[in-house]
Amino acid sequence: MAEPKPNELMEKIVSLCKRRGFIFQSSEIYGGINGFWDYGPLGAELKRNVRDLWWRTHTQRREDVVGLDATIIMHPAIWKASGHVDTFTDPMVDCKTCKGRFRADQLGETPCPQRPSKMVGECHGEKTEARKFNLMFKTYVGPVESEENVAYLRPETAQAIFAQFKNVLDVSRQKVPFGICQIGKAFRNEINPRNFTFRSREFEQMEIEFFIRPDEVVQKLAGSVGAYTDGLDVSTPQPNWGWELWHRHWVEERVKWYEGIGLGRDTLDFHWQPKEELAHYAKACVDIQYKFPFGSQELEGIAARGDFDLSQHQKFCGKSMEYFDEEAKTKYVPHVIEPSAGVDRLILALICDAYCEDQAPNDKGELESRVVMKFHPRIAPIKVGVFPLLKNKPELVAKAREVRDLLRPHLTVFYDEAGAIGRRYRRQDEAGTPFGVTIDFDTLGEKGPELKDTVTLRDRDTLKQDRIPIRELVPLLLERIR
Amino acid sequence: MAEPKPNELMEKIVSLCKRRGFIFQSSEIYGGINGFWDYGPLGAELKRNVRDLWWRTHTQRREDVVGLDATIIMHPAIWKASGHVDTFTDPMVDCKTCKGRFRADQLGETPCPQRPSKMVGECHGEKTEARKFNLMFKTYVGPVESEENVAYLRPETAQAIFAQFKNVLDVSRQKVPFGICQIGKAFRNEINPRNFTFRSREFEQMEIEFFIRPDEVVQKLAGSVGAYTDGLDVSTPQPNWGWELWHRHWVEERVKWYEGIGLGRDTLDFHWQPKEELAHYAKACVDIQYKFPFGSQELEGIAARGDFDLSQHQKFCGKSMEYFDEEAKTKYVPHVIEPSAGVDRLILALICDAYCEDQAPNDKGELESRVVMKFHPRIAPIKVGVFPLLKNKPELVAKAREVRDLLRPHLTVFYDEAGAIGRRYRRQDEAGTPFGVTIDFDTLGEKGPELKDTVTLRDRDTLKQDRIPIRELVPLLLERIR
Repeated sequence: MAEPKPNELMEKIVSLCKRRGFIFQSSEIYGGINGFWDYGPLGAELKRNVRDLWWRTHTQRREDVVGLDATIIMHPAIWKASGHVDTFTDPMVDCKTCKGRFRADQLGETPCPQRPSKMVGECHGEKTEARKFNLMFKTYVGPVESEENVAYLRPETAQAIFAQFKNVLDVSRQKVPFGICQIGKAFRNEINPRNFTFRSREFEQMEIEFFIRPDEVVQKLAGSVGAYTDGLDVSTPQPNWGWELWHRHWVEERVKWYEGIGLGRDTLDFHWQPKEELAHYAKACVDIQYKFPFGSQELEGIAARGDFDLSQHQKFCGKSMEYFDEEAKTKYVPHVIEPSAGVDRLILALICDAYCEDQAPNDKGELESRVVMKFHPRIAPIKVGVFPLLKNKPELVAKAREVRDLLRPHLTVFYDEAGAIGRRYRRQDEAGTPFGVTIDFDTLGEKGPELKDTVTLRDRDTLKQDRIPIRELVPLLLERIR
Repeated sequence: MAEPKPNELMEKIVSLCKRRGFIFQSSEIYGGINGFWDYGPLGAELKRNVRDLWWRTHTQRREDVVGLDATIIMHPAIWKASGHVDTFTDPMVDCKTCKGRFRADQLGETPCPQRPSKMVGECHGEKTEARKFNLMFKTYVGPVESEENVAYLRPETAQAIFAQFKNVLDVSRQKVPFGICQIGKAFRNEINPRNFTFRSREFEQMEIEFFIRPDEVVQKLAGSVGAYTDGLDVSTPQPNWGWELWHRHWVEERVKWYEGIGLGRDTLDFHWQPKEELAHYAKACVDIQYKFPFGSQELEGIAARGDFDLSQHQKFCGKSMEYFDEEAKTKYVPHVIEPSAGVDRLILALICDAYCEDQAPNDKGELESRVVMKFHPRIAPIKVGVFPLLKNKPELVAKAREVRDLLRPHLTVFYDEAGAIGRRYRRQDEAGTPFGVTIDFDTLGEKGPELKDTVTLRDRDTLKQDRIPIRELVPLLLERIR
């Protein structure tokens, strides 16, 4: 089969997302709301699996990261300190003729609402000067809509971590270097949401702020600060690591994590920001990008941010953000490595990556094309389909329900008795279910005792069918989805 | 020991929450923000465990409920249809003298800002008529703050489920009766947030909308509609169930769920709303309350809401919300049973319920009072503490780290080598960790081969210590936290 073109591929993916209940437009029955997306039953499970894995990888499998779950609305001073109130803006112009408002840097690509054949940049409407438009959603807390009651929906989860740094430090028995992680919603009033769920106005982030010693302190303690050379093993933290090696460590850890959910290195691009692109306080930043059908786009940014954030909060709140390092016998504001990932864009990457058209035999043994979502079993929304071969044989149905009830406490099961068995397999292929268990007459012992209480276990990707004793199903499936 | 008084008890609980990192005030370094609370490392894990259990109980262990994960900001017409724009209000009066704004129904309990010795209701300030104040947080989507761009932060998660009812029905291969569940944040601009985290402005809900046949359709199909009688078993759905038995079923299911995380029936109160309290469309509503130190307060409301919500959306969006029932060969708007629980108040109930002061022996064997959080092992933030008996014996430390690494892939572990062993136990008691594993000289085989590679397993509640082979730890602990 010819590879579909990128646009066609995206259309097919968007259509499958709706058809199978991965992603719906928010408020669709009211015509939708631009930049907001809902996750249907399969999407919600997929997202849960990804979040869980990220959380457990960092809080449970490591010893040096603890979790936080902070509010979306915080004290507005936080966004003053972080710089978001003053600089988190896009430039806008108003057209005095048509009363439209447009992004000043996109006038050449935006059609004029009155004469759509022309772009806003070349139409005759009289435009205002460009003004800054803040991307934070604003609201008021309390009954009075006054300046002092203004609050914002957080545009990132990171600042909550900085604001609670001292509290977490006090309770968690952690010492620098250590990290705080958080998963949660964030909001940006994008002028131009686009690329399906990729750039939305409401989205979810998974962020870690990993606090490290300033290089001078490392130098003092270890005698020297380790430098990165190609191929250096950065999997096990060492006492002589400064920001550069900690940054490399996190890049490697995060790439390994992506590999662990099926996004191999070949599906990723790495954009190391050149010095002139970096924020003034940043020492390095790499974007881990996925090769989407619409181009390589960022999944996660990993930045070495120095002590900028904690120092800003120290300045604005008037309270010390310093850490006393018992080993170094000195106080300092810790520096930060920030791996910051977008959940929704990752989900989109996983869906794009899983999408596959190939050929599989139908009930008559003829090859037919199928759509199959090749999710890694770890993140697949449903782990196993359970099917009685025929619906109208009570013994098959009873046995199949027994198997369903055996598996259900351990993993997500989809039980399906309707339609030809090939059709049922195909439905689970589209849902990305990695395993199918079929209960047939052999299971009932009708072809002799040796196959009694065995089932066929079908593999979504290889289409191979193995005969497995029912009592071995749970450990075998748990092993394969680990 | 004398039981502490309710106020003292609440103070102790609030203090422990901060001290151990269950709950912090949001934006504390900036003086806080009234009605917003963050969860620290232990609180975040506790909340995750509760959410996970709720989700799996409904989507994985049952076959008739699927999940949804919708946006917080939705099309504003949804809140017009639901009635929130017009009626989700508290009455407010302004004082023309002091410029304060007050809840009209609380004037007798609110001190006057200018003369705090008097209540607002009896001071001489000139008051406006009472006006309605809407409790929804308002914002604007897009660059223009105009009426047409108004949007609200959802005041409940339920409406997203109704809005996506048709989409979910189309993709999920479910038939009425079935349910859609969702966990997520909701926001209410409360005039008077109170009782610690109990009434907050930003909170999380776990809601199920369970769609059922109207009683007439049940009557037609089953010949009669089942009626509830005391003690009737409502655990297994039956074809003749109308709204009353489905409502009873969900009350029972939810109470069983609370029991399963440690909140026994004796800790709960049930408030069956009398007819005159019910909304005009509601057929029944019961509040499941927990006996908080500050009084019995609602954890979850379970309402039989008829077809009100779907019918309202049908009216406002102009699209049919009808379901074609193949078995009954008829169309109808499904009726709804709504179990709606608050996550934060449940977490507070679990913390209050777990809080316990008793006596335990210290390192010298003398009884000392301790604070212990007796969380059910299923929801405990940390499942097991791992301790080398002494920090300065490298063999003990090495072995303890081995045990830690053995357990860590399977459950949350806290490894602690600092301080006397009794102190370390006590710290985990306060965190609510149900099990402690200590590696001592017996473990190393120093007292003979029969105890080699065994550890002591300490039970938080009974203080009993058992000798367990290391190789049996994982299955044993997994069994006990199930």
